[in-house]
Amino acid sequence: MSVVTSGRYTFPSYNLVFFIFLQLGLHSVEGVWPLPQSITSSPERYPLNPQAFYFTYGSQSAAQEGCSVLDEAFKRYFSLIFPDYSSGRFYSEVKFLKCKNEVRFKVLLNLNVVVASGVITFQICYYVNKTEIKDFPRFQFRGILLDTSRHYLPVQAILKTLDAMAFSKFNVFHWHIVDDPSFPYQSRTFPDLSAKGAFHPMTHIYTQSDVGRVISFARMRGIRVLPEFDSPGHTQSWGKGQSDLLTPCYSGSSPSGTFGPVNPILPSTYKFMATLFKEVSSVFPDSYIHLGGDEVNFSCWKSNPDVRAFMLKMGFGADFTKLEAYYMENIVNITVALNRTSIVWQDVFDYHERIPKDTVLHIWKGLPASYAAELSAITKAGYRVLLAAPWYINHISYGQDWRNYYTVQPLNFSGTEEQKKLVIGGEVCMWGEYVDATNLTPRLWPRASAAAERLWSDEKQTSDVDKAFPRLQDFRCELLRRGIQAEPLFVGHCKHEYQGV
Amino acid sequence: MSVVTSGRYTFPSYNLVFFIFLQLGLHSVEGVWPLPQSITSSPERYPLNPQAFYFTYGSQSAAQEGCSVLDEAFKRYFSLIFPDYSSGRFYSEVKFLKCKNEVRFKVLLNLNVVVASGVITFQICYYVNKTEIKDFPRFQFRGILLDTSRHYLPVQAILKTLDAMAFSKFNVFHWHIVDDPSFPYQSRTFPDLSAKGAFHPMTHIYTQSDVGRVISFARMRGIRVLPEFDSPGHTQSWGKGQSDLLTPCYSGSSPSGTFGPVNPILPSTYKFMATLFKEVSSVFPDSYIHLGGDEVNFSCWKSNPDVRAFMLKMGFGADFTKLEAYYMENIVNITVALNRTSIVWQDVFDYHERIPKDTVLHIWKGLPASYAAELSAITKAGYRVLLAAPWYINHISYGQDWRNYYTVQPLNFSGTEEQKKLVIGGEVCMWGEYVDATNLTPRLWPRASAAAERLWSDEKQTSDVDKAFPRLQDFRCELLRRGIQAEPLFVGHCKHEYQGV
Repeated sequence: MSVVTSGRYTFPSYNLVFFIFLQLGLHSVEGVWPLPQSITSSPERYPLNPQAFYFTYGSQSAAQEGCSVLDEAFKRYFSLIFPDYSSGRFYSEVKFLKCKNEVRFKVLLNLNVVVASGVITFQICYYVNKTEIKDFPRFQFRGILLDTSRHYLPVQAILKTLDAMAFSKFNVFHWHIVDDPSFPYQSRTFPDLSAKGAFHPMTHIYTQSDVGRVISFARMRGIRVLPEFDSPGHTQSWGKGQSDLLTPCYSGSSPSGTFGPVNPILPSTYKFMATLFKEVSSVFPDSYIHLGGDEVNFSCWKSNPDVRAFMLKMGFGADFTKLEAYYMENIVNITVALNRTSIVWQDVFDYHERIPKDTVLHIWKGLPASYAAELSAITKAGYRVLLAAPWYINHISYGQDWRNYYTVQPLNFSGTEEQKKLVIGGEVCMWGEYVDATNLTPRLWPRASAAAERLWSDEKQTSDVDKAFPRLQDFRCELLRRGIQAEPLFVGHCKHEYQGV
Repeated sequence: MSVVTSGRYTFPSYNLVFFIFLQLGLHSVEGVWPLPQSITSSPERYPLNPQAFYFTYGSQSAAQEGCSVLDEAFKRYFSLIFPDYSSGRFYSEVKFLKCKNEVRFKVLLNLNVVVASGVITFQICYYVNKTEIKDFPRFQFRGILLDTSRHYLPVQAILKTLDAMAFSKFNVFHWHIVDDPSFPYQSRTFPDLSAKGAFHPMTHIYTQSDVGRVISFARMRGIRVLPEFDSPGHTQSWGKGQSDLLTPCYSGSSPSGTFGPVNPILPSTYKFMATLFKEVSSVFPDSYIHLGGDEVNFSCWKSNPDVRAFMLKMGFGADFTKLEAYYMENIVNITVALNRTSIVWQDVFDYHERIPKDTVLHIWKGLPASYAAELSAITKAGYRVLLAAPWYINHISYGQDWRNYYTVQPLNFSGTEEQKKLVIGGEVCMWGEYVDATNLTPRLWPRASAAAERLWSDEKQTSDVDKAFPRLQDFRCELLRRGIQAEPLFVGHCKHEYQGV
């Protein structure tokens, strides 16, 4: 029985293989999800004694004694492996008897009913099969997007999602924190943004302390937090707390009273953005910042005479994609100056190729044919790319749609080996039109886990979706056991059912 | 301000109008769902003093002092109207000062943080607008089907659903308690049915005490419990605990080892069914029993030489619908002998019209055109009918599909006025292939509420789905406030968000 603690790890730096081994504690190889790169199990069994069991650092592990992320993980997983031992529930008295290579718990239950006036004793033994695992992720970026603008998600719901993410080896929480409907991020520098732009200035915001709690909780689970402040579109809520930020739309020759995307022609816009992103880069330690850049509607810009005059002055003619490119260049440069790498939605590539080479493009549009073409084009231009298009998991349908998420082939596009290497990973997106804390968890799990295996495991070893089905069913039951309200895949049952309270 | 306690009530006998009035306690007329037949509200406001407020029986009410259903409802709704008063949460000391036609709560909060070393006081006042409501349901049968065979639903999840049902004025819980995958009903007479047919003989069953608890909990909320023991199809799980009940299928000239529908040719089958339904009718007090009768697959019957011989003997030739009809007639007659009225799925009408005239047919098949034709045909034959086809709410899709459930027109079929009167109501079906306690509540609510209004309210007053939208949004928030984890209809927020724990 050996714990493997080495392997290729570039993103994040600490070791997640560890977790796989622990999943085996009480379960068969078949229940492991996502599938390790290599796993060998033998019928040889060893007893596990919770009183003597402990985790330790491998001698060749990059992380050594005192690594808080691992130390905390040791505690969490000990409880998951020995839940009854850890919680003490049902036991008024527990005794451990050592006998014949086994550890026995002697459990004394004092039942509070008339029929059982005495004491019932029984034994619980834990075993583990001798198992060797060698593992590493196929893609370094395995993300989940939550949208906290269309509906506010209480911090507790985010933490719960982070917990579940770790169980499926997701390592990036893409926090689409603000958008048109609301601005829940409470900025230190611009408190009016949430005071006026959130659904409620007190109850529907993320304070600095909330954000810190999310980042720290995520870090302890091997998860990076990637913040997105999407602009110049998707910014209606920003305008409520920051006057002159959005473009005034015109009806004929006078302002209509409505506003469009961020106003790209004013120096004050870039000053505001520089200050905001300076704060963001100090609050979110991750080296990446997501800048959005998607779905910019040109009609308001077109209606505004000042914008049209600026276009002429800049030599953009009537090509508003040039104005958009001009805006995004400025924002990306702000990010570069802050020593952060930008991630932007594919739109930015589609209309404009002159962006820093280390920018990551994020594909979200279209059906398999079209995202394959986009993968091909973006990697041919030498950019790194993230794939989200086939994993818009907010789009629900009747039946086992997890199969669609599972059978995605991220590298199935025409391109060289070098191009393929530029696909750094993928992302499951849970946009918030129809999702809040009431339905988030069962809608996300275990459907997202299908994508998780695609991003972690070897494609050839996991090409049979029917073979994956019973293993995913087992894993879903394991999620239930760990307190994640994951929905069922089909008819059947788990040993530990969610009680529905 | 008057509480209306009279009106047309045929099913159930006790008065549900009462509940509507109470919804007004803290909310505007716009938030009332389903819409009452008549509601008049004036700007004239009255203070509500929780210390002086009490419910009483109207002098013309059919129910009078000592009606436990109303007395219990008084308690529940008092807490819903005055939640802070009832729970005492946040208050270390509450004082009531009477002043100028108002009741004030003086609330002394001792905050346990350094910045508030003193005592903060504020006031809470409850008001109600002068409102008069006259109300009665459009249809007498407004049901929800839960399927506890494809997935086991813990009793707690059923009780939660009953609570939510009452808030939308559903009055029938159709308990599809057993089916092919599992037999969770623990029979007194045939304990092997659940011991061998449930997913687990101890943890995935409904004991007699569980069933009693469900019935009593439902009764207190004005809800009848309609049990369904579906046969002769959908009975695979029955065969595990009752040998010789199912038809042995043949492969060529020998039994294949698999089993088909209930064996309709053996006297022992009817003896068993008579005994089982005798128990069922003693456990479930409702005057209706649902007998199923849907989707009988003939291939196993066809393969069995004994069945074929019986067909010839009975003069059925090769028409297996005649055998099916023969079976259902026997089962319906058992129910009649027990002084119960049968409800059966439409299949029974489709293949065979010779059924007792008081049998209720339950339409579940097809698109609007086909269920309208079925409504027409069944009512023309003089049978009462229930409509479920347009409300198969387990069929999820992306977006606001509640609009489809709302715009159903149950009486929009060709037929006389007499025929229309035979439509006694409708039912929302939540089949269990992809649903268990993890996702039941947000999947059911508020989508089922759309059907609830269609079944309760006047069709002309509720013909505009866009006008209904904000009212349903308000109602969904009210469900959240009452502890029902109802999912959002679209972008936005509630004052009381579900915390996601």
